[in-house]
Amino acid sequence: MDLIQLKEGSAIIEVPKKVIQHITEKNEVFYNPAMAVNRDLTVFLLRVFVKEKDRPIKVAEPLAASAIRSIRILKEVPNVEKVYINDLSLDALNYARKNLELNNIDLSKVEIFNEDANVFLLKTKYYDYIDIDPFGTPVDFLDATAKSLAHRGIAGITATDTAPLSATYPRTCLRRYFAKPIENEFYHEVGLRILIKKIAEFFFQYDIPIEVVFSYSYLHHFRVFIKRYRGARRVDEILKNNIGYLLYCHKCLYRDTLPITDLREIDLTCPVCGHQLDWAGPLWIGNLWNTDYVNQMVEELPNVEVQKETEKLLKLIEKESKVPSVGFYTLSALGKALKLPYLPTKKQVLKELNAVETHFAGDGFRTSLNHQEVIEKIKTLVGKS
Amino acid sequence: MDLIQLKEGSAIIEVPKKVIQHITEKNEVFYNPAMAVNRDLTVFLLRVFVKEKDRPIKVAEPLAASAIRSIRILKEVPNVEKVYINDLSLDALNYARKNLELNNIDLSKVEIFNEDANVFLLKTKYYDYIDIDPFGTPVDFLDATAKSLAHRGIAGITATDTAPLSATYPRTCLRRYFAKPIENEFYHEVGLRILIKKIAEFFFQYDIPIEVVFSYSYLHHFRVFIKRYRGARRVDEILKNNIGYLLYCHKCLYRDTLPITDLREIDLTCPVCGHQLDWAGPLWIGNLWNTDYVNQMVEELPNVEVQKETEKLLKLIEKESKVPSVGFYTLSALGKALKLPYLPTKKQVLKELNAVETHFAGDGFRTSLNHQEVIEKIKTLVGKS
Repeated sequence: MDLIQLKEGSAIIEVPKKVIQHITEKNEVFYNPAMAVNRDLTVFLLRVFVKEKDRPIKVAEPLAASAIRSIRILKEVPNVEKVYINDLSLDALNYARKNLELNNIDLSKVEIFNEDANVFLLKTKYYDYIDIDPFGTPVDFLDATAKSLAHRGIAGITATDTAPLSATYPRTCLRRYFAKPIENEFYHEVGLRILIKKIAEFFFQYDIPIEVVFSYSYLHHFRVFIKRYRGARRVDEILKNNIGYLLYCHKCLYRDTLPITDLREIDLTCPVCGHQLDWAGPLWIGNLWNTDYVNQMVEELPNVEVQKETEKLLKLIEKESKVPSVGFYTLSALGKALKLPYLPTKKQVLKELNAVETHFAGDGFRTSLNHQEVIEKIKTLVGKS
Repeated sequence: MDLIQLKEGSAIIEVPKKVIQHITEKNEVFYNPAMAVNRDLTVFLLRVFVKEKDRPIKVAEPLAASAIRSIRILKEVPNVEKVYINDLSLDALNYARKNLELNNIDLSKVEIFNEDANVFLLKTKYYDYIDIDPFGTPVDFLDATAKSLAHRGIAGITATDTAPLSATYPRTCLRRYFAKPIENEFYHEVGLRILIKKIAEFFFQYDIPIEVVFSYSYLHHFRVFIKRYRGARRVDEILKNNIGYLLYCHKCLYRDTLPITDLREIDLTCPVCGHQLDWAGPLWIGNLWNTDYVNQMVEELPNVEVQKETEKLLKLIEKESKVPSVGFYTLSALGKALKLPYLPTKKQVLKELNAVETHFAGDGFRTSLNHQEVIEKIKTLVGKS
C-alpha cells in the first residue's frame, strides 16, 4: 500500500495515500487535512484550559483514527497527564500506534482502547477533556459524553452535518435535533445554535449546567466547546435565559428571541413591517464565546505553529465575541430587503453602526444597535432616508 | 439476615425482609410488591408480542435486581429464547441467582451480566424486548435502549418520577424532559405524553420511527411500551402527526393540539371564552394504545394468574382505547368551570355523551364530541342550558 507522510502542527503522521485523495468514513483510517484548523483551535483552547486547571489533565479521544489530534495534544499542550485513545477499527489503531512511535510520544502518557466509542467513554470515565470529532453528526456520542465529563471539564464537539442544521434538509434537522432551522442571511449561526441546544439538552437532563466556551463555523463543519458545572438550579437559570426561539421577518429582516418558557408571549406579526414572522428553534440564544477564553487563545498565537487560516479565524472571532447578538446582518440581505440603490462599504458600516465583522459571513456584521436603528443608519449611508 | 419468600404471578422470590418494609434504591436488592401490576401487564403484552413474532425472542433486563421480572417472563411467556439479566450490584445478582434456582429456571435460557446498564445494552445488543424499570426517571437509559432494540422490537419503559412530569416540579420537567407540564384535570395524561415525547426523541434522532403499543398511569408510575420500525421518512410523518403542543383554557376547559411544525398557527386566545390559553409540551399527541394489542392482551386474561387490580386496569383501558383523544374531562372540573348546581352521574354522562371511562381518573371520561358539544350536553343534563 502506498503510504504518505504529512506534517500538521508539530506532528508527523503516516497514512495510506488514498486516504487523503478521497475523504470518506469507509477509509481504513480517517484523516482529513481540511480539519487542521479544527485541531489548531483545539490546541489553543486546551493551552488556555490547562493554565486554568493548573494540574495535569486527563484527555479522551473516543474516535481517534490516525491519532493526529492526540499526538498534537501531547506535543503542543503542556500538563497533559494522559490521552486515552480509542477506535473501533483495529486498522485505524495500527496506524495510530505507528504514528505515536513516529512522533516519539512517551507511551506512558497514552492508553489505547478498541471499543465502541460510547462503551469506551462509559467504562473509562471521567475525563477533563473529551473530543468528539465524528464523520457527520455527533448526536450518537452526546449521551455518553454528558455522562463521562468530569466536573469543570470541557468537551470539544464537531458536527459535519451542516446541511440539515442550516436548513438545506429541515426535516432531518427536526428528526435529529428536534428544532426548526431557517433560511436567512445567518442560517449557519442558527445551525450552530441548534447544535448547542441539542448538546445542552443531553447535559441538562442529568442536572448538569453548561457554558459555551468557544464555537465557530468553518467550511463544512461546526465546532463547539462546552464546559460543564454542577447544580440543578443553575440549569434552570441557564435554560430560562439561554434556550429559546428566534423570530425572524423575511421581509424587513427584523429579528428577536423568545425564551422557551415564554411561548405565551408569542406574537408572530412583525412589529416593524406587519409581515408574518418566521421562526427557528428551539436553539441556544446565549453567548457563543467566553471572551476571557477567546482573549487568552489569541495570546497563545505566537506560541504554536498553526495554519494561516486558523490565525485569521481566531482574530476575527476575538473581535466578533465582543458583540454578543443572536444573528447578524449582511450587506447583501440589507440591500435586497431595503431595495437599496447601491450598497454602503463594509468599512462605512463598521464605523457608523459601531459594528464588528463576523466569521460566519464575509459581508456580515454584528452590532448592538436595535433593528430600527440599523435600518435607519443603513438608509442614511446610501442617502435613502 | 432475615429473608422472606414472596409469591408473585407464578414466581417465588426470596429477598431480605427489610427490603419490602422500606422501598428505597439503596436496598441491596430492589423489590417493590406494588409493581406487580407493572409486571403482570408486561407478561400480557409479551404474550401478544411472541404470538406476532412467531419465533423465539431475545429479552434484556438491564436493571434486573431480584430478577422477579425475568423469572416471570421465563415462566409465563412462551417462546422466549433467552433472557439477558444484568445488574451493577453483585449483591442483587446473588439474590437473582438464588431466585432463578428457587424457580427451577432452565439456566441455558439465562445469561447474567454485571455491568453498567448502558454498557451492558451497547455491548450485547440487539434485543427483541428491552425492559427499563428504574427507580426514578428512565432518561439515563433511553439512548442505549434506542441503540440496542432490534427492528420491530419492543421496549417497556417505566418512569416513577411522576411528580415532575405531572407539574408538581415543572422546572425539573423542563430540565429533564425539555417540555412544559400542566396543572389541569388530566395532568397525569400530559405527564405520560411528555414521557413518550422524550422516548420518541431518542429514537427519532437515529432515524428510527416508533409506535406506542400500550401505556398507562398507575399509582406512582407511568409505563410505556413502544415498538420500533425503520425509515427516516416514516419518522418525518410520525413527528408531524404525533408530536405537538396542548393548548388549554383553565377557564372553560377548552383544549386543542398544535403540531410541533405549526408554531406559526399558534393563537393563544381561547376560541370559546376568550380567556388566554395555557399550553403544555412538546408532547406526544398520537395514540396511547394500539387497539389490536389491547384486545389481544384482554384475551390473555384467563391464561395468566394476576392481581385483581391488573384485570380491572386492563379492562378499563380496553374500553378507553377505543376513543383516542388528547385529554379527557372530569365531572369535578366541569362542575367547577361551568358552576353547575349539581353534578350529573357518570352513568348519565357516559350514555348521553357517548363517552368511555378513563383509567387516569375515577370521575373522568373520554368522548369524541367536540368541546362545545360537551359543554352543551353537560349543561342540558343538569337543566342549565
